[in-house]
Amino acid sequence: MTVKILVTGGTFDKEYMELTGQLVFKNTHVPEMLKLARCRIDIKIRTLMMIDSLDMTDYHRNSILEKCRNSKEDKIIITHGTDTMVKTAQFLGSQIKDKTIVLTGALVPYAFGSSDGHFNLGSALAFVQSMPNGVYIAMNGQYFTYDNVRKNKVTGEFEEIFNNNSE
Amino acid sequence: MTVKILVTGGTFDKEYMELTGQLVFKNTHVPEMLKLARCRIDIKIRTLMMIDSLDMTDYHRNSILEKCRNSKEDKIIITHGTDTMVKTAQFLGSQIKDKTIVLTGALVPYAFGSSDGHFNLGSALAFVQSMPNGVYIAMNGQYFTYDNVRKNKVTGEFEEIFNNNSE
Amino acid sequence: MTVKILVTGGTFDKEYMELTGQLVFKNTHVPEMLKLARCRIDIKIRTLMMIDSLDMTDYHRNSILEKCRNSKEDKIIITHGTDTMVKTAQFLGSQIKDKTIVLTGALVPYAFGSSDGHFNLGSALAFVQSMPNGVYIAMNGQYFTYDNVRKNKVTGEFEEIFNNNSE
Amino acid sequence: MTVKILVTGGTFDKEYMELTGQLVFKNTHVPEMLKLARCRIDIKIRTLMMIDSLDMTDYHRNSILEKCRNSKEDKIIITHGTDTMVKTAQFLGSQIKDKTIVLTGALVPYAFGSSDGHFNLGSALAFVQSMPNGVYIAMNGQYFTYDNVRKNKVTGEFEEIFNNNSE
Repeated sequence: MTVKILVTGGTFDKEYMELTGQLVFKNTHVPEMLKLARCRIDIKIRTLMMIDSLDMTDYHRNSILEKCRNSKEDKIIITHGTDTMVKTAQFLGSQIKDKTIVLTGALVPYAFGSSDGHFNLGSALAFVQSMPNGVYIAMNGQYFTYDNVRKNKVTGEFEEIFNNNSE
Repeated sequence: MTVKILVTGGTFDKEYMELTGQLVFKNTHVPEMLKLARCRIDIKIRTLMMIDSLDMTDYHRNSILEKCRNSKEDKIIITHGTDTMVKTAQFLGSQIKDKTIVLTGALVPYAFGSSDGHFNLGSALAFVQSMPNGVYIAMNGQYFTYDNVRKNKVTGEFEEIFNNNSE
Repeated sequence: MTVKILVTGGTFDKEYMELTGQLVFKNTHVPEMLKLARCRIDIKIRTLMMIDSLDMTDYHRNSILEKCRNSKEDKIIITHGTDTMVKTAQFLGSQIKDKTIVLTGALVPYAFGSSDGHFNLGSALAFVQSMPNGVYIAMNGQYFTYDNVRKNKVTGEFEEIFNNNSE
Repeated sequence: MTVKILVTGGTFDKEYMELTGQLVFKNTHVPEMLKLARCRIDIKIRTLMMIDSLDMTDYHRNSILEKCRNSKEDKIIITHGTDTMVKTAQFLGSQIKDKTIVLTGALVPYAFGSSDGHFNLGSALAFVQSMPNGVYIAMNGQYFTYDNVRKNKVTGEFEEIFNNNSE
């Protein structure tokens, strides 16, 4: 089994640039995170883009869709900014039915001490191995199906639109 | 849905004690880790013991078994030292069939900067939500069923005894 | 002996705000940093302002000057953004001759794992105890007198304008 | 001006060894710490030994003395375990009068997130540049002369034996 990780940027991978005091993108932290996790899964990482998800256009989403469709691997993780993660999940979810795709990201950059990124990557890797085909978001320790999730603008957390839990 | 986390100690929760230079147990780091993860799952944490897994006896394992059996929640995570994690998984796995139980831990204490603990907790929480009833170990980004896993003494990593993957 | 620390903001104290993805000021990290350092010096901390040093005006500098003059303590550290740290040092240095004042800051926020802030605070505290009266900048492991220092815009490092070292 | 750093081990440089769960010595973290500090001082680092200071014998102390005497640089920092740091300071202090030597260490390993090591190194580097010839200990944000310092076994902190402060 091989898992493909498609990197698109987002808070997850932001770094502090000393000279300007700005948060910027350099290289993805995913390889370093997997090493720290002593992860033994066979993983292929591909950086598609390094952008804020607010800057993501239809062009970018089509490019992601293309890469998912053409991927030999049927287990795919996409690292993504949280602001438009739901939109990309919906776009992919309505068009891909034969793979397990999990989008994840972070509320705080991994390079910060207090990031949720390492936890979220662990969570996404577990869900992508265990969930049936479909497109999901893995955030806040939970998974959400692409057609029943929104980001709460006030709390910054992801939540279901309709509560399907009978418990 | 509620997940129960049973804390038993292990490397995961070890801390550095300044005055003696020893690695010791104080309180579990699990609540702090869940907060950092912005975890929104309903979770009940219970510390059963705080010991090295090399010090774990039949008495301790019976106590863990008891708590799993009596737990109202059918999704249970057990934090555990890695040295005898397989033994405890086998002990529980042969006797509990109606719950999803995931054992996890860490190779490096969470209090160290370079720990795999946060990643592993994210992974364990995802597996406990998505896997069918059974007893599993979640380490190195993977899950293992209780009856097909060993810790490789040379690498420190967990691995299957028999390779069941057809891929 | 008592050391006074006047907090003015700067990169040193910036934090990541999850909801907006901006770097912002909340409370100063100085007390937490001193605790981690197991610092046993008698220290009084006073937050004067929490601003970017690019936003610092004559009004702000006069306020800092006033606080330095009126301070009972004659050993004073000022945490300050690096962009205009030299300007504030010159302003204070030309007017205060009877106290030891050390300005310091950070190139990377303390809340980031890779910050120089803790090191710089240790350095500033040592210089303020050991240097004769005067106004200094403590950055990059060195001290600079207020009238012979500039920030190198290309490297981000502080350096002497005239080389006084005979060695 | 050049500062020499003599590395002898101590808590400062301890690391966690995954396979055994022990705290051990590998390479010193000093170069990494100086890089993070954006330190611009000309520094020569030499690792003399990597041992617990409880294991330090007369043989080791003579070796350190020899290196200090033969050092071309007259500003020397010695990283050292805290348990016998006072003993080594006294040994050196009674025999070397023409150089500034500062011993420092840490109560928590640098590799741990909560270490005082980076702060202490910044402090030691500042004191070695600003103090007159003599042998000192730099810990807890303070400096101590070699003949008036002890480690408080209860608190783990360094303190003067006789209080010389008139303030």
